[in-house]
Amino acid sequence: MSELEKMLSGDIYDPSDEVLTMLRAEAREITARYNVTPRRDLAARTKLLAQLLGGIGGEIKIEPHFNCDYGQHIFVGNNFYMNFGCVILDCAEVRIGDNCFIGPQVGIYTACHPLDPIERNKGIEFAKPITIGDSCWIGGHATINPGVRLGDNVVVGSGAVVTKNFPDNVVVAGNPARVIKALTT
Amino acid sequence: MSELEKMLSGDIYDPSDEVLTMLRAEAREITARYNVTPRRDLAARTKLLAQLLGGIGGEIKIEPHFNCDYGQHIFVGNNFYMNFGCVILDCAEVRIGDNCFIGPQVGIYTACHPLDPIERNKGIEFAKPITIGDSCWIGGHATINPGVRLGDNVVVGSGAVVTKNFPDNVVVAGNPARVIKALTT
Amino acid sequence: MSELEKMLSGDIYDPSDEVLTMLRAEAREITARYNVTPRRDLAARTKLLAQLLGGIGGEIKIEPHFNCDYGQHIFVGNNFYMNFGCVILDCAEVRIGDNCFIGPQVGIYTACHPLDPIERNKGIEFAKPITIGDSCWIGGHATINPGVRLGDNVVVGSGAVVTKNFPDNVVVAGNPARVIKALTT
Repeated sequence: MSELEKMLSGDIYDPSDEVLTMLRAEAREITARYNVTPRRDLAARTKLLAQLLGGIGGEIKIEPHFNCDYGQHIFVGNNFYMNFGCVILDCAEVRIGDNCFIGPQVGIYTACHPLDPIERNKGIEFAKPITIGDSCWIGGHATINPGVRLGDNVVVGSGAVVTKNFPDNVVVAGNPARVIKALTT
Repeated sequence: MSELEKMLSGDIYDPSDEVLTMLRAEAREITARYNVTPRRDLAARTKLLAQLLGGIGGEIKIEPHFNCDYGQHIFVGNNFYMNFGCVILDCAEVRIGDNCFIGPQVGIYTACHPLDPIERNKGIEFAKPITIGDSCWIGGHATINPGVRLGDNVVVGSGAVVTKNFPDNVVVAGNPARVIKALTT
Repeated sequence: MSELEKMLSGDIYDPSDEVLTMLRAEAREITARYNVTPRRDLAARTKLLAQLLGGIGGEIKIEPHFNCDYGQHIFVGNNFYMNFGCVILDCAEVRIGDNCFIGPQVGIYTACHPLDPIERNKGIEFAKPITIGDSCWIGGHATINPGVRLGDNVVVGSGAVVTKNFPDNVVVAGNPARVIKALTT
């Protein structure tokens, strides 16, 4: 398996691999251009996002400055909005459903390092995919940890640190995030 | 009522309204210019801030990269300092008193979406004003939620998530923020 | 003592001092250039970091947009990696050991203001040094408060707010951060 295949399948991989390094460099060139493309150049912005991301379900808006690791492992549905200053570390896949709104300064991180310092210092990493269902609203300053799966209609309170999965129709908040309200639908 | 008037009065409004869209675009052009204007061009920076914000009580300093939605709904008093990477979502008014210091990476958010996903997906929003008194210090990485009113001399600990009002002369911290110390004056 | 000496020794100092103002302006010019230097210009980036920081133990990588106050009070060991959007307020010294990985959107703050509003409004400040041992991993969105000392092999969970010292070989998380796991080595 290539390092890219290992990374995407959750195995330990070497991020200094030549292909991975090139893919990250490409993503950073595109995001750097995206982040300074004026808002009025909608066509240029849309084109850069299509080039950067793995898949777009329809209309999406991402405010600058956006940063990600690869871009091509991010798949978002239709009617997606992400506010200022968000970071997605998409070593593993990040799949976000339709009608999702992400507040400003949010971090969505799939990247993991070994807890053992001797292993970690070798520079090896692994990653766990993140899935966010349809019609979710992630409040500003929230953190979504590696491996998290959120159902549909989940609201994540501002500043929440989401460390585990949550089912459909709940509001979660806090550090670590806990259900603070069930939504009846 | 116009969508702008609805937004400022706390009613449900449509952010895709033509006037609101134009106002946000103008604010982003100004902030984009502000964020790359060198520190030594004090006159240019001051002029851009005066153009961007709704009201300035006197001397203010905002470090780049600063982002906001409209700018014109932000009113700050004299001797205001805001550090690197802050975001103010000023759909509703944000009023900050004299002598306030805001740490880096802070989020001040007036924007709300309906909790009901069917309502939320229509794209409608509402907003709640935020008021911060005189002589407050908001620590880095803090989050101030929609509708929050802080008294005078309030200190918000770094990383706190402020979800409710606090009176004068308290130190608050945590997620959600709670009073951890009363200040005798 | 000069204001710079007072600042570095933990005494109350005046940040509007001419020398300190000049040093911050220099640091911001360098970081502004660093943050827009393309990733492929490795030589230029390395040179700017060497110019900005107080000491570098070997190979280091810092993703843009990085911001700091002075730069010259930051000392990092070999094999240092800091991800997107981090802020280090290095009024006091920030010393980071070898093999440390810092996630995105992290804040490392040595800057303190007096809790008393009358004192604080005079514009005087003080700062407390931060020390991070060897082989630490600071998760994304974490906050490290003034005066904190972390031992070796410490893992700080994403979104944690670190308000006190922790010894070697622990995983800490939460707001405020607490030990959630001991690491046996």
